[in-house]
Amino acid sequence: MELKSIGIVNSPFKVKKDSPHQGRFSEEISTIEIFPEYAEALDGIEKFSNLFVIYWMDRSGPASLTVVPHGRTEKRGLFATRAPVRPNSLGLCMVELVKREGNVLTVKWLDALDQSPVLDIKPFVPDIDCL
Amino acid sequence: MELKSIGIVNSPFKVKKDSPHQGRFSEEISTIEIFPEYAEALDGIEKFSNLFVIYWMDRSGPASLTVVPHGRTEKRGLFATRAPVRPNSLGLCMVELVKREGNVLTVKWLDALDQSPVLDIKPFVPDIDCL
Repeated sequence: MELKSIGIVNSPFKVKKDSPHQGRFSEEISTIEIFPEYAEALDGIEKFSNLFVIYWMDRSGPASLTVVPHGRTEKRGLFATRAPVRPNSLGLCMVELVKREGNVLTVKWLDALDQSPVLDIKPFVPDIDCL
Repeated sequence: MELKSIGIVNSPFKVKKDSPHQGRFSEEISTIEIFPEYAEALDGIEKFSNLFVIYWMDRSGPASLTVVPHGRTEKRGLFATRAPVRPNSLGLCMVELVKREGNVLTVKWLDALDQSPVLDIKPFVPDIDCL
């Protein structure tokens, strides 16, 4: 199971300590540059106000089976947290699509570090993605 | 970017034509068997009623940059759809956690085919994952 990058994140979060605990609570703007060979796959994406971005957390550090979640004091199993130190460094973030210009998506709420490889974009569909 | 399987899906959906268009609209039950070496990472997961499952759609067919979405007649860019024929075969599904027994999660709403490799489990957190 080999992944390929379909694009790259341009974000104000250059290093880990700058990045928000949750992108959702940040007003910062990022862009996602989809590589030209995949640009056609964006057709119609502006119909959606929100997207899931799956990206590779390439600076996340080694996986750990237990972690102390942000703001807590007791260890918890990694899969019961959103901590980045995962067996597969897959980041998942629901973002607001501000605009699309060609192969560039401008988004809010993305917590990815600058230059993170993008793996997939899926439309957010409240009927199946929310309670 | 190389992925490793952290578990396997056991599902009533043995072949593509049996699988629901959206798992959310199915009452079928699946189980996710997390491999013993990752079982500790499930500690505390039963605190969450819902989870994101990221899995590998190993029988999804070759990627296509445009598709005609289910129930539509016009082509749309792949990233504006949830179609499985993606550059990276990453399946994303929000599921209901029915129960956890050791390293086995019993879930509803999962649309993965039987024996799909599981890549990540993340808790669903409405404050950041919903509008």
